[in-house]
Amino acid sequence: MAIAALSPLHSAEGFTIDVLLRIQRATLLNPALAWLLPVLAGLKATATHPYTSTSLLDALQHLPSTFPHILRTDRLSQLALAVFALAAGLQVNSYLSRAARNNFARDRKGWDWKSEVVVITGGAGGLGSEVARRLSDKGIKVVVLDVAPLAADAPAGISYYKVDLASAEAVEEVADRIRKEIGNPSVLINMAGVVRANAILDMPQREVDLTYDINVKAHYYTTQAFLPHMIEEGHGHVITIASSTAYHQAATGVAYCSSKAAALSFHEGLTEELRHLYQPSSHARAIRTSVICPAHFKSNMFAGFESGIPEFFAPSLEVGTVAELVEKTVLSGESQHIIEPFYAKCTPLGRALPTWLYGGILACAKDAMGAVKAYKAKEAKRE
Amino acid sequence: MAIAALSPLHSAEGFTIDVLLRIQRATLLNPALAWLLPVLAGLKATATHPYTSTSLLDALQHLPSTFPHILRTDRLSQLALAVFALAAGLQVNSYLSRAARNNFARDRKGWDWKSEVVVITGGAGGLGSEVARRLSDKGIKVVVLDVAPLAADAPAGISYYKVDLASAEAVEEVADRIRKEIGNPSVLINMAGVVRANAILDMPQREVDLTYDINVKAHYYTTQAFLPHMIEEGHGHVITIASSTAYHQAATGVAYCSSKAAALSFHEGLTEELRHLYQPSSHARAIRTSVICPAHFKSNMFAGFESGIPEFFAPSLEVGTVAELVEKTVLSGESQHIIEPFYAKCTPLGRALPTWLYGGILACAKDAMGAVKAYKAKEAKRE
Repeated sequence: MAIAALSPLHSAEGFTIDVLLRIQRATLLNPALAWLLPVLAGLKATATHPYTSTSLLDALQHLPSTFPHILRTDRLSQLALAVFALAAGLQVNSYLSRAARNNFARDRKGWDWKSEVVVITGGAGGLGSEVARRLSDKGIKVVVLDVAPLAADAPAGISYYKVDLASAEAVEEVADRIRKEIGNPSVLINMAGVVRANAILDMPQREVDLTYDINVKAHYYTTQAFLPHMIEEGHGHVITIASSTAYHQAATGVAYCSSKAAALSFHEGLTEELRHLYQPSSHARAIRTSVICPAHFKSNMFAGFESGIPEFFAPSLEVGTVAELVEKTVLSGESQHIIEPFYAKCTPLGRALPTWLYGGILACAKDAMGAVKAYKAKEAKRE
Repeated sequence: MAIAALSPLHSAEGFTIDVLLRIQRATLLNPALAWLLPVLAGLKATATHPYTSTSLLDALQHLPSTFPHILRTDRLSQLALAVFALAAGLQVNSYLSRAARNNFARDRKGWDWKSEVVVITGGAGGLGSEVARRLSDKGIKVVVLDVAPLAADAPAGISYYKVDLASAEAVEEVADRIRKEIGNPSVLINMAGVVRANAILDMPQREVDLTYDINVKAHYYTTQAFLPHMIEEGHGHVITIASSTAYHQAATGVAYCSSKAAALSFHEGLTEELRHLYQPSSHARAIRTSVICPAHFKSNMFAGFESGIPEFFAPSLEVGTVAELVEKTVLSGESQHIIEPFYAKCTPLGRALPTWLYGGILACAKDAMGAVKAYKAKEAKRE
């Protein structure tokens, strides 16, 4: 998570538990600072006159030999060492995970943002247009694929192609045009998504179709169109915009959540295939794959949503915050697995918990997707 | 898991780690037996002449008062108590999970197998036909929905309706006929499934469509057809046949795994909706929902599969074993969450692990779906 993390102090969502945790990560749990804690605690336990420079120097010199003894007796030193060990452990875990996500493979071509081409599906509105604008502002060639027309105020540098993402043929046709007119894309952001807040019993086939067509199946067609050239070059990045609901379920949002579970699974499978299938494998293993799983953010798509949990613990993200995460993921040129904010980071644990415990937790957030109340209100009106 | 578990000693798969664990669960970790361990260990520590009946009775009488003291000094008694505590903890967890899965709600109508109607999609062949035969042999009315014709040797009692499950309209039409000709089904088993072992880059749209149509979207249409009457009656059971690949991914099986992740998510979402949406909620909460996630089993659908892990640890299940799990789930009349065999029970943990650790584990099973080798052989031939 490290490289694409948000800055510790700037928070568009105000003061939330995420800010507290980020501050802690940057200070107390930052191993570059945390090593000072056991040293200071050890000095306090050793030095008889800690404020005279000679005795401080003495104490520092003796610390390596006396520290094991201090540890057996001094509670504060034990605690300080434990904090440092936790900080170091978290850091080592971060580095290992980062290396593993990137297949321990170097992208030999490297990222040259003047010549890269970034494709964004669903980039005409909402989160997609915000990401397109941010990347275009950095001077990057951005290509938007969407069925909706590009917003009138979109930056002039953005190329736009109208396409029905549900058709493999249409996507392949538009990909041919992009290759000819702009060049081979090296970054593909599968962002287009639809949400229909309906109970299972109220989902007409056209809405079931649309949800899975756009949120899952389109990923196959865009990947088929742009991945082969990335493999040839040993250089590229496929980014899947899933959702924290890929890890859990919510009444009246079943099709959306289920399609996002499938999209997360697609991302994982794509990663496995790049790891194991292609020759030369050193090329394919350097292709980056990222997945971004935001919890609720304030897009029109999710208007009316309430999580039922206090905002301090479960803030709704601003569209700009999610766009920043996507932007940083692109610019990092590394594989990322982002779940934000903090409360959403707990969602992958859910299915590993005992049923009664997980059920109890879900019951606390039963109004997730905000639609249970809305649904009941609709039902009451109908009767 | 308890009520649908396989018997501890009979194993169609031979001697595997699952047999060892089941024996342990039935003996050492069975609290009805395990309470003897601390008693025996305590007696051994107390009784001076344990084999004379007077001193044994003495020891038994003194045990309650001396045991706390024994525990402070006797290692064997400590160990015995720990084993009993583990056994009791597992049992309490099982009971709580079972109650939670069933929404702490009683099915007031109860199951009368002479009048229940069980619908099985994809019941014409493979696992489906085996389940249909087993239930029909028990005298239960079984209705098979399939696009393939019923096998010639299928039991005479089974009703068969040919239908394209990918069409909501066709499913609704056939449901009307079933209601008129047989009655309202109280058990729906969503079993129909397809697998296409292809890399993402080699999946034509018709195969992407077929996989998600049958493995996910059909669940909406069958549920829409049969659930409303179950809710009215406060009596019913919807069983989803997913796969352990709902929890993890495998190269060259991405569409299958991803569709099963979506099916698992559908099951969870359906459960949430029955819990929270419908009035009277006491009716809807008594509807049972089960999901069955077998790892590889020896159906024609998965011919050629090799997990790459020794059979002792990762046995391929017999079709009969999986059919028995489905049969027991139906007959239990309770909500179940079954993942078999043991190695597959670990899959829900994967996404909760650090990336480097999960990646390392996946790398050990990189030939899962057996298709990586097959794919590379095909590639080599092509060149």
